[in-house]
Amino acid sequence: MMATQYEGNKTFTIFEKEKEQPSKNEVRIKVAFVGVCGTDVHIYHGMMDKRVNIPVTIGHEMSGVIDAVGEGVSDFVIGDKVVVRPLDDRKVKPSDKGFNHICEELKFIGIDSPGAMQEYWNVPAFVLHKLNNDTDLKLAALIEPLSVATHDVRMSGLQAGETVVILGGGPIGLLIALVAKESGAQVIVSEINETRIAKAKELGLTTVNPMQVDVVAYVKEQTEGRLADVVFEVAGVQSALDVMTEVAGIRGRIVMVAIHGEKKPVDLFKFFWKELKLIGARVYEKEDYEKSIALINANKLPFEAMITDVQPLSNIQQVFENIDKNPDGMKVLMDCSL
Amino acid sequence: MMATQYEGNKTFTIFEKEKEQPSKNEVRIKVAFVGVCGTDVHIYHGMMDKRVNIPVTIGHEMSGVIDAVGEGVSDFVIGDKVVVRPLDDRKVKPSDKGFNHICEELKFIGIDSPGAMQEYWNVPAFVLHKLNNDTDLKLAALIEPLSVATHDVRMSGLQAGETVVILGGGPIGLLIALVAKESGAQVIVSEINETRIAKAKELGLTTVNPMQVDVVAYVKEQTEGRLADVVFEVAGVQSALDVMTEVAGIRGRIVMVAIHGEKKPVDLFKFFWKELKLIGARVYEKEDYEKSIALINANKLPFEAMITDVQPLSNIQQVFENIDKNPDGMKVLMDCSL
Repeated sequence: MMATQYEGNKTFTIFEKEKEQPSKNEVRIKVAFVGVCGTDVHIYHGMMDKRVNIPVTIGHEMSGVIDAVGEGVSDFVIGDKVVVRPLDDRKVKPSDKGFNHICEELKFIGIDSPGAMQEYWNVPAFVLHKLNNDTDLKLAALIEPLSVATHDVRMSGLQAGETVVILGGGPIGLLIALVAKESGAQVIVSEINETRIAKAKELGLTTVNPMQVDVVAYVKEQTEGRLADVVFEVAGVQSALDVMTEVAGIRGRIVMVAIHGEKKPVDLFKFFWKELKLIGARVYEKEDYEKSIALINANKLPFEAMITDVQPLSNIQQVFENIDKNPDGMKVLMDCSL
Repeated sequence: MMATQYEGNKTFTIFEKEKEQPSKNEVRIKVAFVGVCGTDVHIYHGMMDKRVNIPVTIGHEMSGVIDAVGEGVSDFVIGDKVVVRPLDDRKVKPSDKGFNHICEELKFIGIDSPGAMQEYWNVPAFVLHKLNNDTDLKLAALIEPLSVATHDVRMSGLQAGETVVILGGGPIGLLIALVAKESGAQVIVSEINETRIAKAKELGLTTVNPMQVDVVAYVKEQTEGRLADVVFEVAGVQSALDVMTEVAGIRGRIVMVAIHGEKKPVDLFKFFWKELKLIGARVYEKEDYEKSIALINANKLPFEAMITDVQPLSNIQQVFENIDKNPDGMKVLMDCSL
């Protein structure tokens, strides 16, 4: 079988190895497609060298077919199409209060343990979600990032008819936009990159460019003064933090999706004055995966357009180099049989 | 009748004037007691000279008895004991989404229009809440600040058995502590002022001094690692903002009670990582007043100990000067008949 490894220093290697039998309570998956996540790019850039166990096979956005089943696995059989929810919560403690998906000693599969950028992948059965026989495996590789979006939207408590502003139109921002719109919200995506604005428009979304338009005035006009009911901060920049508290209306909810590596100035007075809520949201729970699988199976949203490139896994080095050269792309998949 | 006015420049005047007949839909209250709020002290310090209409009668924490009833008032009669919920929401708009208590054009009675620091006070009937015939009017002057506390606790979604950390043990912090404890929570008050620590202990509260003890380690130990379920930020200082995101456990809720006049650094990564919520909370709604009135009528909490001084209204200048000299006190009331 073909496998890849991140070796440090912006380098992936490709090599042949023997397929491994799945251990007890594990399955072996023949990986169909694996998506490249922003986190994978961070790893490639060496930003997570202290956390990952170099050399390591990374990758956690995937789809595949069960190829072998270990002892004790009763819910899955060879031939099942599956995706992995890459959260290993086996070290959960009572102090995690039942929030297993963000438990203190969570291991993220594909970062903290070997991932999906290989032809076959052995994983514990408890991380599996079954797909339909006719689920499109290319689209299914979007289920992991889509579940981030369904989780973020669920955490926001979004109601049909509400106005949503999404700050940042990257892959997660646009998936949030699609999910929010599907939930019956009026969605406005704020983005400065013209390629991403064009992609958002292709997806049928309303966009605004804050370099050209006063976003707060625009949203105020669109909502007869109510402003946004829900804001998703997906940009991770100070200008988004500055606008989020302005563009949210009375009792608005702001979902913090972006990762801010250091403390940043926030207008706490606005939280007090308008009784805003800030809602931290990280990864996903089982029900978010189920919602995403249902959306992919229904295939009524323009998911196909989110995939801007599909490359053979054997091109992994070039794939990551190209993402650096062209950061405007959306979702890049790799075909793990090639 | 006796009335007082803030004249600017840290000066109150006292003067005699004619009682006024209540207009249509108004009542005249014979004010019993008026409390001094932090906001009143801000006004005295000249910090709100741009907002208040100098010269102005201030004061909004009060109790009294209806003395005259204007045309069109049907729910109240002369002799009724009442308190005022000092929110004039008559300019509410659809864009306020029904959140009248924080509507964009809210007028705060006693700041934006004349207040209770006088012998008789005319107010529209819609701001009144009726007390019992035997309600203690001295304790009833606490109903306004107590309603800030009941609102904050309600907004937190506090459940019995949860652990609450209150950052800042001033009047509002201690009232929140009493309400949270009465709701069945384990309450820890973090405060650095020894006089306030002593007062909190007198009220039967558990305290911790962050100058002497690592608050996060202390709360972790007290909760078997769960940390705080709910944090109230009442201190308004950077050190409280730094600790709030540390002391909150997984999915912890942080209620922003303090007024931060400028943008402050906040650890947004912790919001993401632990899925924390920040909940802005301002003033109160009708049901918070009803809860507070019930608590004052039941009189099972040590409210009496919250009142550290009662002075005649005719001493108003000295009362404000003393608060500046001795900022350790809790609630100071003025008797408006003297």
